[in-house]
Amino acid sequence: MFNKNSTICALSTPQGIGAIGVVRLSGLDAIKITNVIFKGKDLDQQPSHTVHFGKIMKDDVLLDEVVVSIFKEPNSYTGENISEISCHGSPFIINEIIQLLISKGSVSAAPGEFTLRAFLNGKLDLSQAEAVADLISSDSKNAHKIAMHQLRGGFSNEISVLRQQLIDFASLIELELDFSEEDVEFANRDQLEALIIKTRSVLNTLIDSFSVGNAIKNGIPVAIVGKPNAGKSTLLNTLLNEDRALVTEIAGTTRDSIEDEINLEGTNFRFIDTAGIRDTNDIVESLGVKRTLEKIESASIVILLFDLTNSNVAQLKETVNEIKPALDKNDAELLMVGNKIDLNTLEKTKLEYQEIEDVLFISAKEKWNIEELQQKLIETSNLHQLTKNETIVSNIRHWDALTKADQALLKGLTGLKQNVSADFIAMDIRASLYQLGLITGDITTDDLLGNIFSRFCIGK
Amino acid sequence: MFNKNSTICALSTPQGIGAIGVVRLSGLDAIKITNVIFKGKDLDQQPSHTVHFGKIMKDDVLLDEVVVSIFKEPNSYTGENISEISCHGSPFIINEIIQLLISKGSVSAAPGEFTLRAFLNGKLDLSQAEAVADLISSDSKNAHKIAMHQLRGGFSNEISVLRQQLIDFASLIELELDFSEEDVEFANRDQLEALIIKTRSVLNTLIDSFSVGNAIKNGIPVAIVGKPNAGKSTLLNTLLNEDRALVTEIAGTTRDSIEDEINLEGTNFRFIDTAGIRDTNDIVESLGVKRTLEKIESASIVILLFDLTNSNVAQLKETVNEIKPALDKNDAELLMVGNKIDLNTLEKTKLEYQEIEDVLFISAKEKWNIEELQQKLIETSNLHQLTKNETIVSNIRHWDALTKADQALLKGLTGLKQNVSADFIAMDIRASLYQLGLITGDITTDDLLGNIFSRFCIGK
Repeated sequence: MFNKNSTICALSTPQGIGAIGVVRLSGLDAIKITNVIFKGKDLDQQPSHTVHFGKIMKDDVLLDEVVVSIFKEPNSYTGENISEISCHGSPFIINEIIQLLISKGSVSAAPGEFTLRAFLNGKLDLSQAEAVADLISSDSKNAHKIAMHQLRGGFSNEISVLRQQLIDFASLIELELDFSEEDVEFANRDQLEALIIKTRSVLNTLIDSFSVGNAIKNGIPVAIVGKPNAGKSTLLNTLLNEDRALVTEIAGTTRDSIEDEINLEGTNFRFIDTAGIRDTNDIVESLGVKRTLEKIESASIVILLFDLTNSNVAQLKETVNEIKPALDKNDAELLMVGNKIDLNTLEKTKLEYQEIEDVLFISAKEKWNIEELQQKLIETSNLHQLTKNETIVSNIRHWDALTKADQALLKGLTGLKQNVSADFIAMDIRASLYQLGLITGDITTDDLLGNIFSRFCIGK
Repeated sequence: MFNKNSTICALSTPQGIGAIGVVRLSGLDAIKITNVIFKGKDLDQQPSHTVHFGKIMKDDVLLDEVVVSIFKEPNSYTGENISEISCHGSPFIINEIIQLLISKGSVSAAPGEFTLRAFLNGKLDLSQAEAVADLISSDSKNAHKIAMHQLRGGFSNEISVLRQQLIDFASLIELELDFSEEDVEFANRDQLEALIIKTRSVLNTLIDSFSVGNAIKNGIPVAIVGKPNAGKSTLLNTLLNEDRALVTEIAGTTRDSIEDEINLEGTNFRFIDTAGIRDTNDIVESLGVKRTLEKIESASIVILLFDLTNSNVAQLKETVNEIKPALDKNDAELLMVGNKIDLNTLEKTKLEYQEIEDVLFISAKEKWNIEELQQKLIETSNLHQLTKNETIVSNIRHWDALTKADQALLKGLTGLKQNVSADFIAMDIRASLYQLGLITGDITTDDLLGNIFSRFCIGK
């Protein structure tokens, strides 16, 4: 899959025009190859962790004036020799430099290959390597927190300890198999049972954290539903613009790539299926009952928006009854929001809708009570309870392995209670060890690595 | 306009998600401020041109693991202290780091402020500073060559020498003014005349190079015209796709941002007003005579495409006569291209059109003779004559200043011949010196600097 003797190179900064672009090389010959195209000090003779100004020459033509940083193995990100060429951020220059490096013996890096090498050289375990990708794509405070926690070791330390204890027991049980005719018990069954119960309790906490972790990583899906003319489109714009205005105060921020998403107190809320809402023509805005119900089923929070100038309590109750099964399917939270309070008297409206619990009156157009609605979204998401040190699983691969490990342990536990023979118990523990090993990378396959690292961007 | 005591910071790599993002600081406190948020070695105590691994902390929270390069004044790009923080390329992390730096006393850099400081600290002259922006946005071999030549000194050295000689003469002439009642001549009129003629000759070469330089920098405008159904849309796609296929072979190349442009042997050709062509519906493709003529007037090369299955020589001659005035207006070159040769016999077609000089027969659909057409574009552009050491002006500001300087010198020359008094000649020379000084930056105004550097990207 991967040739350790090769020296890889790639652009490590985002594509596009910028002040600086960084081309990174890793491998035995990283510094040597850079030295060939570099006119300045002899890079081969320079100590690790130093920076050198010089010129990149293509034949006799000056390609760029650059600054090269060198890092010598093992004190680098990948554990190999690394050189980083900081050049002017012109796509033309960057391509010329990469082609030049390739002509001098370097090869194009595959996506994630730098981090893959860091993993293979023991610089990171597998879940930490995955955290690098999460860290780069983290776009909210909480997503960043989870990724950083995982990069710093996260739950893999915890799992490594439990795994070692299970391995010790597994060895003892397998020893019993060698003496199977003598009917001895090297592994204390009570202690093993206690260990399995303890391990399962840890695994279950991690498994349960996944729904929170997933929501943090991918944003909490919010559906805005309601009749045509309820003001869904105006509300969506108000919510998104409020946020955009906030965001642009921060120097250099751009959120253009993230459509229909707002970040409130470190949590992302993602408005789903907004295409229907964005149709400005209210006549075609009506989605039809079936599609509305589907939309509700894929949301964690549903905002039911109704037009205060054109609704009544009886109607509203009926609507809630209609959508209740869809809401329950995914345990979605319902927020009842009455719009166009600017056209009604608040006092009278409150009286009229007093039967309905927890309804919020807003004016999407006048931006009244929008902050209150945002506050409700935050409260409903419950994610504000996330504390600094809590371990959260946000990776579906980890969740899958944890769940399978837990199932194997459950089977082992049942076996223990039924006094099944040692070889069955050994098998269950092995199955669980295998799954846990997949998380940390103690057990890997080329497929697994290929799968994980192909999702990285090139240059990392 | 600019506070030299402040320490500026900005993201220097392109916006977006990537493996690495580089936040750059410049100013007296660049290293000191970085040190405050950096957990690792004491950066204040480290030598220039070294790299240090460590953590960026926000209060007690770990924001990222980074690598910081430090450069101490005057050995840096700006001539000031510089630190560059290489962090994970997550927009979230980058914003947090920039906000943290600002909270510790740094300020957001204005566009181009790093390069402005380099200019103000005498690291670059003004035309070199401008070349940095051109270098970054250079997207072809020739554009890169011009920008790099200019960055390395380019014609500003030449101008500086001429300017110094003119200053010497101007001083002598102004000395005459002090002795005006004594009717002496300190400045030898013959020598002055010779210098002005020599200077004008240099200026005129530079002025004349502008049309070439501008074409290189912005691409040579090409118009494809012809009747509906001539196959203009197919030809455009063929030309563009040929190029795209080539480009994607190069690792990491993306040309998505450059629409309707191809690069042939280092020169960009820009197809203008392609909206009409892109209308796939041939019935609405017809642009109307007026718009076609406008299109021809704004092109340097016009491809007149005709359908071989539905044309004749008489018709064609008529069309050429019709568009001739528009062609002449801009000295545009005309390429006659007969399309759909796959539906005709080449031998017979050649005979039929032998009256018309230099016509090319292609099949846009079958991609026949497309390379020949590309070769014609290159030959017609004449830009392949651009040699390595030729000085080319590609900046309209420089062109403007050179032209004004030349006009002033011409006026001075005429005055000399008519024996006008020394004060008039002095005035003309001063006017020309002023214009030349604007190019190199010996003469600057806040407006001028503001104008130039506001066009830079932030972080450079």
